[in-house]
Amino acid sequence: MAIGKVVTSEEAKEIDKSGKFNRQQNHFTTPFGDQPGMLPVESGRYRLLWAAVCPWAHRSIIAIKLLGLENVISIGKASPIRTEQGWEFSLDHNGVDPVLGIRYLPEIYAKTDPQYSGRATVPTVVDVKTGKVVNNDYFNLTYYWETVFKPFHKADAPDLYPDHLRADIEAFNQTLFHELNNGVYKAGFAQSQSAYEEAYHLVFNRLDELEKRLAHSRYLFGDQITDSDIRLYVTLARFDVAYYSVFNTNRNRLVDFPRLWAYARELYQIPAFGLTTDFQAIKQGYCLGNHAKNPHDILPLGPDISIWNTPI
Amino acid sequence: MAIGKVVTSEEAKEIDKSGKFNRQQNHFTTPFGDQPGMLPVESGRYRLLWAAVCPWAHRSIIAIKLLGLENVISIGKASPIRTEQGWEFSLDHNGVDPVLGIRYLPEIYAKTDPQYSGRATVPTVVDVKTGKVVNNDYFNLTYYWETVFKPFHKADAPDLYPDHLRADIEAFNQTLFHELNNGVYKAGFAQSQSAYEEAYHLVFNRLDELEKRLAHSRYLFGDQITDSDIRLYVTLARFDVAYYSVFNTNRNRLVDFPRLWAYARELYQIPAFGLTTDFQAIKQGYCLGNHAKNPHDILPLGPDISIWNTPI
Repeated sequence: MAIGKVVTSEEAKEIDKSGKFNRQQNHFTTPFGDQPGMLPVESGRYRLLWAAVCPWAHRSIIAIKLLGLENVISIGKASPIRTEQGWEFSLDHNGVDPVLGIRYLPEIYAKTDPQYSGRATVPTVVDVKTGKVVNNDYFNLTYYWETVFKPFHKADAPDLYPDHLRADIEAFNQTLFHELNNGVYKAGFAQSQSAYEEAYHLVFNRLDELEKRLAHSRYLFGDQITDSDIRLYVTLARFDVAYYSVFNTNRNRLVDFPRLWAYARELYQIPAFGLTTDFQAIKQGYCLGNHAKNPHDILPLGPDISIWNTPI
Repeated sequence: MAIGKVVTSEEAKEIDKSGKFNRQQNHFTTPFGDQPGMLPVESGRYRLLWAAVCPWAHRSIIAIKLLGLENVISIGKASPIRTEQGWEFSLDHNGVDPVLGIRYLPEIYAKTDPQYSGRATVPTVVDVKTGKVVNNDYFNLTYYWETVFKPFHKADAPDLYPDHLRADIEAFNQTLFHELNNGVYKAGFAQSQSAYEEAYHLVFNRLDELEKRLAHSRYLFGDQITDSDIRLYVTLARFDVAYYSVFNTNRNRLVDFPRLWAYARELYQIPAFGLTTDFQAIKQGYCLGNHAKNPHDILPLGPDISIWNTPI
């Protein structure tokens, strides 16, 4: 995914003539399933590569934890600071992913498809059997973990994508993507004032609408956590520590929306959400590594994140 | 003064080896008064040049308005966006100060002293009779308006620097300068993490102390506004719209300090404070004009400043 460093040369291709950011389409989108041509649903076969800064990858990690798939899907973690060479496995011993043996994520994209010219993004799912990328379709990945991987769920796993709500959840998720999850990026990566302002209003109009929605509902679809809550959460968790200042989405902070803030805190206090939320990594990823914008790599000390642990 | 554009080549001279920002000393510091060698106290003789973004200049404007000196000291206003050529009178007809005939502030410094190699700063006081700079000593300027210019004050002017409080006010102002007024700049201009963190803690420790102080006092020195209130106000008014994001002083916003926020709003609602506070100019000055940091000159739409008008 693209992170918060204004726009690097890699993302420059994704800016249109009016200064708007148009996120690249994912390239590896073969679904998981039991039909011909699909990726077989197997335990121990896939490795999911993520980075704690990245909301698109964080989604999959939360779903995997909630569903108890940690022993079914292996997980590799890149540093939050994307380098000029791409996502880097510098957190690992010798700076190399211990399963795939790569230092930089683009290596495995090149191995998979030497013609691939897009960004190498997290989340990336690698088939460990072949050592090749099989899926980087962050929008649909959580659906696969929630549905076709059901035979591997833990006994008391929640149903994050219940049949009777799927159409509503999917429609909601599309709006959420365009207006909020990716809306903050459209604001932050805009190369014209009009593109920025259009995105800013999308973001805050959607947050205002969600604030109202939560007056009548504990989670987005009632009393049970669903896939949509994961998607909303990953953006909310990054709002005050990154987007507010780095992406100029600064009409209000998350903490200024009483219901959204209580909702986000309630989710944070569930281990699958909170223990996978690394605010320091998020700040590093969005603030560091851009030498034009932050030549001395100053990492902001604030905001105070201890307030995420205050009671609901 | 130096504004919020990371550090331009002009300010680079003011960074020491440990990455700390050390603000230049003022060059034109002859006091106003009736002693030999002092600047004579006269009506209609001086022109004060300011810019709405600049807290150091804003102080003088507030004092002048409170004291009713607008017809005694003439006022010229530069654009909030300092250019590569320095402060620019682009708000004026033909882009030239109508009294001094200059387009850029450094012109009058060069005319005054061709050897001057420091930054040309606001506030600058020009002797209109000679067309030369006579004072740019922002720290002491308000004292002159408040004391030696007393013969020209309006009838009901407040005593902003009362005799019996001068030692306390002066000591307070020194601390305020080092820890808060200039503390935010030390954070924002730091070129090392340690220099930034040291300044950040100075700023928030001082704000915490001030929050406590206002529990027992309407203004800093009791029930009357003093010079110190002006100095605190100009920094508070810039905190959430600029320093929080641009200078990384982001442990908390001003609005998170209940007493400081009520105090700042009370001052804002006094015309000499509120009518001279141009939040849009402040945002422009701190956010625009730095092409490395903000190559597309995106002006943040937030935060919501209408809340400054809410009742105390």
